[in-house]
Amino acid sequence: MSEKAFQDCYSDDLSQCYGCGRLNEEGLQIKSYWDGDETVCVFRPRPSHTAIPGYVYGGVIASVIDCHGTGTASAASNRALEKEMDLEGALRFVTASLHVDYLRPTPMGTDLFLRGTVKELKERKVIVGVTVTAGGKVCAKGEVVAVRMPESMGG
Amino acid sequence: MSEKAFQDCYSDDLSQCYGCGRLNEEGLQIKSYWDGDETVCVFRPRPSHTAIPGYVYGGVIASVIDCHGTGTASAASNRALEKEMDLEGALRFVTASLHVDYLRPTPMGTDLFLRGTVKELKERKVIVGVTVTAGGKVCAKGEVVAVRMPESMGG
Repeated sequence: MSEKAFQDCYSDDLSQCYGCGRLNEEGLQIKSYWDGDETVCVFRPRPSHTAIPGYVYGGVIASVIDCHGTGTASAASNRALEKEMDLEGALRFVTASLHVDYLRPTPMGTDLFLRGTVKELKERKVIVGVTVTAGGKVCAKGEVVAVRMPESMGG
Repeated sequence: MSEKAFQDCYSDDLSQCYGCGRLNEEGLQIKSYWDGDETVCVFRPRPSHTAIPGYVYGGVIASVIDCHGTGTASAASNRALEKEMDLEGALRFVTASLHVDYLRPTPMGTDLFLRGTVKELKERKVIVGVTVTAGGKVCAKGEVVAVRMPESMGG
């Protein structure tokens, strides 16, 4: 793992995201890191993040896949350009589309382990596959199509 | 619109969902209703539900699409069986897959209007298309594949 989470390299004005912004006090504040050519994130759902009692809410699973995907897109783009994400500023991506297959109910009370794989890497578009494992089983698989944030959105 | 929200017809033990459970105090508590053959929901994101400042977080959009989709699946199944959802118990669906296309940034500070259309209706599987409109424009389109909750999950 690298030392600093991808999301902690975003500039302050782009760190408000509910899913991954380090400045959003109510948010999920997920943290993603490199693990070789793949990316990882560990997230523990809050007790309120339930669906049917005992199982994790699918919208929260979609959310962590989303932000792990855009974070991976940012990190992979920086790496391809040989830019130090921390020192030279992280390229910020937003989500063009999100797909999640819920393979089995995801148990509460245990960590979710996310693993991201870059499927396609272009200058302004990155496709990331994400698996979510809990209790030793893959519970969900997702795909995030991330695109470079339009300048009109700020930043 | 019918008088009572679909989600308010779920039994108490199935009303803990972060997205739509009326008993989840921290959750989004979305409410869905019939509008003719389609279904509608109005949701106002909280200030914390931001992505890039000024725009709604995609994970929250995915979440409201998810619960509006499963709620629509439940209501459509009850209607097809000519069962009164409120009196005879709502059939409970869970999400098998979720897809969201984010067509444009979704503005904060205004209501999201969701509209659901039943694309396919089988006894144990319902596919629902959902559009999300904000500020007069369709900002996202989603599809929820909902399946009847396995009895092993409780309820």
